[in-house]
Amino acid sequence: MDRNVFASDNASGLCPAAWAALQDANSSGCQLSYGEDPFTKEACELIREQFDCDAQVFFVFNGTAANSLALASICQGHHAVVCHEQSHVMTDECGAPGLFTGGAMLHGCRGPRAKLTPAIVQGAVSGRRDLHASKPRALSLTQATEFGTVYSIEELNALTACAHEEGLKVHMDGARFAHALAHLQVAPADMTWRAGVDILSLGLAKLGAGLGEAVVIFDHALADEFGNRCKHAAQLASKMRLITAPWCGLLRDRTWRTLAQEVNQRTLDLRQRLSEVPGVELLYPTEANAVFARFPSTVNRAMHAQGWHYYELAGIGDSRLMCSWATRLEDLDAFLTDLHALS
Amino acid sequence: MDRNVFASDNASGLCPAAWAALQDANSSGCQLSYGEDPFTKEACELIREQFDCDAQVFFVFNGTAANSLALASICQGHHAVVCHEQSHVMTDECGAPGLFTGGAMLHGCRGPRAKLTPAIVQGAVSGRRDLHASKPRALSLTQATEFGTVYSIEELNALTACAHEEGLKVHMDGARFAHALAHLQVAPADMTWRAGVDILSLGLAKLGAGLGEAVVIFDHALADEFGNRCKHAAQLASKMRLITAPWCGLLRDRTWRTLAQEVNQRTLDLRQRLSEVPGVELLYPTEANAVFARFPSTVNRAMHAQGWHYYELAGIGDSRLMCSWATRLEDLDAFLTDLHALS
Amino acid sequence: MDRNVFASDNASGLCPAAWAALQDANSSGCQLSYGEDPFTKEACELIREQFDCDAQVFFVFNGTAANSLALASICQGHHAVVCHEQSHVMTDECGAPGLFTGGAMLHGCRGPRAKLTPAIVQGAVSGRRDLHASKPRALSLTQATEFGTVYSIEELNALTACAHEEGLKVHMDGARFAHALAHLQVAPADMTWRAGVDILSLGLAKLGAGLGEAVVIFDHALADEFGNRCKHAAQLASKMRLITAPWCGLLRDRTWRTLAQEVNQRTLDLRQRLSEVPGVELLYPTEANAVFARFPSTVNRAMHAQGWHYYELAGIGDSRLMCSWATRLEDLDAFLTDLHALS
Amino acid sequence: MDRNVFASDNASGLCPAAWAALQDANSSGCQLSYGEDPFTKEACELIREQFDCDAQVFFVFNGTAANSLALASICQGHHAVVCHEQSHVMTDECGAPGLFTGGAMLHGCRGPRAKLTPAIVQGAVSGRRDLHASKPRALSLTQATEFGTVYSIEELNALTACAHEEGLKVHMDGARFAHALAHLQVAPADMTWRAGVDILSLGLAKLGAGLGEAVVIFDHALADEFGNRCKHAAQLASKMRLITAPWCGLLRDRTWRTLAQEVNQRTLDLRQRLSEVPGVELLYPTEANAVFARFPSTVNRAMHAQGWHYYELAGIGDSRLMCSWATRLEDLDAFLTDLHALS
Repeated sequence: MDRNVFASDNASGLCPAAWAALQDANSSGCQLSYGEDPFTKEACELIREQFDCDAQVFFVFNGTAANSLALASICQGHHAVVCHEQSHVMTDECGAPGLFTGGAMLHGCRGPRAKLTPAIVQGAVSGRRDLHASKPRALSLTQATEFGTVYSIEELNALTACAHEEGLKVHMDGARFAHALAHLQVAPADMTWRAGVDILSLGLAKLGAGLGEAVVIFDHALADEFGNRCKHAAQLASKMRLITAPWCGLLRDRTWRTLAQEVNQRTLDLRQRLSEVPGVELLYPTEANAVFARFPSTVNRAMHAQGWHYYELAGIGDSRLMCSWATRLEDLDAFLTDLHALS
Repeated sequence: MDRNVFASDNASGLCPAAWAALQDANSSGCQLSYGEDPFTKEACELIREQFDCDAQVFFVFNGTAANSLALASICQGHHAVVCHEQSHVMTDECGAPGLFTGGAMLHGCRGPRAKLTPAIVQGAVSGRRDLHASKPRALSLTQATEFGTVYSIEELNALTACAHEEGLKVHMDGARFAHALAHLQVAPADMTWRAGVDILSLGLAKLGAGLGEAVVIFDHALADEFGNRCKHAAQLASKMRLITAPWCGLLRDRTWRTLAQEVNQRTLDLRQRLSEVPGVELLYPTEANAVFARFPSTVNRAMHAQGWHYYELAGIGDSRLMCSWATRLEDLDAFLTDLHALS
Repeated sequence: MDRNVFASDNASGLCPAAWAALQDANSSGCQLSYGEDPFTKEACELIREQFDCDAQVFFVFNGTAANSLALASICQGHHAVVCHEQSHVMTDECGAPGLFTGGAMLHGCRGPRAKLTPAIVQGAVSGRRDLHASKPRALSLTQATEFGTVYSIEELNALTACAHEEGLKVHMDGARFAHALAHLQVAPADMTWRAGVDILSLGLAKLGAGLGEAVVIFDHALADEFGNRCKHAAQLASKMRLITAPWCGLLRDRTWRTLAQEVNQRTLDLRQRLSEVPGVELLYPTEANAVFARFPSTVNRAMHAQGWHYYELAGIGDSRLMCSWATRLEDLDAFLTDLHALS
Repeated sequence: MDRNVFASDNASGLCPAAWAALQDANSSGCQLSYGEDPFTKEACELIREQFDCDAQVFFVFNGTAANSLALASICQGHHAVVCHEQSHVMTDECGAPGLFTGGAMLHGCRGPRAKLTPAIVQGAVSGRRDLHASKPRALSLTQATEFGTVYSIEELNALTACAHEEGLKVHMDGARFAHALAHLQVAPADMTWRAGVDILSLGLAKLGAGLGEAVVIFDHALADEFGNRCKHAAQLASKMRLITAPWCGLLRDRTWRTLAQEVNQRTLDLRQRLSEVPGVELLYPTEANAVFARFPSTVNRAMHAQGWHYYELAGIGDSRLMCSWATRLEDLDAFLTDLHALS
């Protein structure tokens, strides 16, 4: 029983498929560095194939870097990024987008369930357009959102159409992309370039890879000198295969998609079982790998005292339980047993 | 009759006192550049004397620079600045604070009448304190505010006490400092260092000086290498006397304070006369040199059509009328005559 | 007698033509701010007319800003600027280009008389072109140079051809542009866009204007959002006419060109008279408004002791004497008299 | 036979000790992220123990980040870094230090064998100290150097004394720290804090670890908010144990030091065997894990044609052969056999 298992979907290590590929790559002798190795080439190729397009693909160290560099490929310092006030770029990147863009402002907007709507975007960009206000240049969407909800294809289409009409490029933060894909039961292309997304931060770490995140660029103009940009931002790995081999392990045979399906199902199981606990209030729809719930505060304290790690949102107190490849049935059993004992 | 006169308090040129001093300085022959001239020395001395302390004083080109460099002396890129969502740093500086700090985030808070309260500041800083969120490090207050209101000394004391307790330094944006001073009828020291302000952007341009703004540093630690910081940000004037001589003209004999008193009175006259116009709704107290009013939109259109320039707030439509040293009684007469004719 | 007169060409105030125009502008009542005034429009128009093209013109506060923003319109942080190791951007801007570009490196090259050659540029760009080295993207030339020499039109053509072939845009630092023009006896267009210059920092402050410098953009792609860039860098003046009116005074009737001619002649007079002083060694050709000379160190000390201000180059000790509109015949007389007395 | 083996010391994967520790960590279940795991704690503890002091230790993704963030803890944008013109920060980081410091300039100095001397440092800092020049604030030394040479303890002491006297903090780029240690046969403390080093970038990737580099901070003032700085720069790993577990594997039982000793010896073997090849000229002393040699250019071409990867220095053509834990005797045999066949 692993009491950290619900703390975060990055609390787990590499899943077996990713680990096997890493082991294979590490024992393949000397390889040219900085991405000139066969594993990196394969990972890029697999992404292009599964996204059904000739996207440009770059690997960086983490999601903060992927988001910040993607935004820096769109924005200069005098620009603004329209995003949700609960988005990771706004709340969890300690101003990294500002560093990498030279000071671009984040325009965080309110919206229910951590989602934006065309009307919200319109409101954010229809204000002043003089020289004194940062010029809106990017729309950043998170799919799945920080609250575990998922934009439908129709919602995405409407948002990107609105953004493009206003001269904004569209960035998608896909730290939990696979879970959204599994929820919508669509192809990667449907949820990205076919839906008007220009550039994607694609994460697999939370699903079972190790370090590293991919920037997948559909609008080729944004790929111009992106490799130089990565290097300048200290985001070019020497032993790149250590990042990309686990990706190969997950991408081959579409393992990542099967795995996301399983994790989503486990998350729904968790939600179902939580709904049966007296005094527990469930929040938001559960569409990806997160369950948000409101526990009595005495319950939270007691669970934490027993060693269970999970986050409560600052100021609000809502509890967040994350699932990953490492979440086993027995973890659910153990958690629910302890919870029932307190209710 | 000057139909730009209410457009902005920076629509006017130099007032007579400032102009006379500039003329004097310009005809004083060759002077050492970059601030090594007698006018700059005198301006610094006059400020120290009138603020009754040994503040360090630096002159930069404008208010955006003064604010941004003041914040950069407090904050690095991983920090956050707590400010009002209607503050100039937030809405009118196109992200300059982000450039000069290396990406610090502006945490814009709501509050009535463009003012913050200790509770609002507390709310902004009491959230997460982990590595993922920008660390609050500065509180930026505007005195007088963008809505023409003025913090009382008690309000300032409460805010700075709260800020210091939370480890924040206090910056004051004093683009309209003199008007607040005239409203409160206090000494400069009372409204700054004695009230807990650590660093001040002091503007006189809107009152009657020309280009340039002073950064007045009460907390000497913040003055460390501030001159180098100015140069690095392209904010060191070669012919510095052209900035500082007009300041001497306004500071000598406390002309700036008398002048602010007069402009405040003229502004109250304007408000009084607007209150007599049917259909005009007055907004916020008038405590400095701005009157905010709600005109029927047909009136706005007609006045603009007649050549009257004044701003309507984006999205809201409230009208802002500014007074300066150049606002004459006949300007009020002309404006009111046209307004009455439309009502 | 003015013992600061040779210290720098920015030691003087505004020349009569510039001052008269400023006076006129200041007494013209209220004007829209941020460049929406008639003086700014006229200054832009005069520049376009005299440069015989539809350049985009922006006014910023000083030369450091003009250079840094011009380079920022060409370069991002992962780029490099090829320049002379004695250029102002390299030695006298305290890293401002690095701030405004997000970290672009300055590749300072050696070359006689503060001048670059195609071979030197070639050497600087023909090194590594992998992701690890900053990618050369701009060539920055100073005309006239920091050593008072002037590139011929042929030299400029050769340099810009080489730069363009290598994919570099060409920036010209024209802080002393008028003096070079007077030396070469050519039209502004000949020395800029016809010679392959893409963007120009045009200074008149050292000739007799006050604060401010123009960025004149020939390659329109570089002008994209340049106004926003200025605002973001705190380089947008509210009372813009105070910068641009003196420019009008100098540009009208081509006063700037006549004036530069006169100053150049005065500089040659100074050189001639220095050449007659025993023990004085003259350095570099005198092609603009600077004379470089080697005095015996006892002479330097004695002249400084008598109050004469002029710079000695760090580490080398060569003396630099600058002329401007304010340098009168009697200043030469006084300086030479004191010098002869010591020799 | 592995023809990439001499290309770079980062061409290899994880060495057995590092791999075993990684495997162990990956199979340890869920762990708190962002460094709150036991492996990270152990790695920090092992470093403190083996450096015999209470250094603060932070893990980032690579050497470029470690160097840039270390310099950013010392320098702001108006500062300068004195370093060798052949140093990695100068030639191989694409301006990353400029990004992370907000524009600090790198003052690259010449010096034989990629080494600086107190006289060179003195020369670099004794120039102008006015506001216009970037203010020297850091000395960055590389140990072992980019040319495979090693500073003696006496040389380090002299350099750091000179730096401290001039008000500079001392940074050491220790990408190949272990090899220098093995060459000098001293303790880590002797080569760092006891020799006046304030902050160290410590790399093990080239020796046999995977991704990641440590910043070891001896001067605690520089550690202030360093974690926030890392996060802001997108250098905080979520699954931190994947970086730190291999470090544990190398640090436990001082495996890293034994291994470096072996690699150094292998490098000396390579040098010895190269010296026996006719027409090969050896360059610089071989004190770490690099051999620099001059081959006839026909030989270089032929060796490359046979698939041997190794670097030739841009512009110079000198060949660089690197050794690592993965360099086996049979690799030497194969390389030398091919080389002899061409001579």
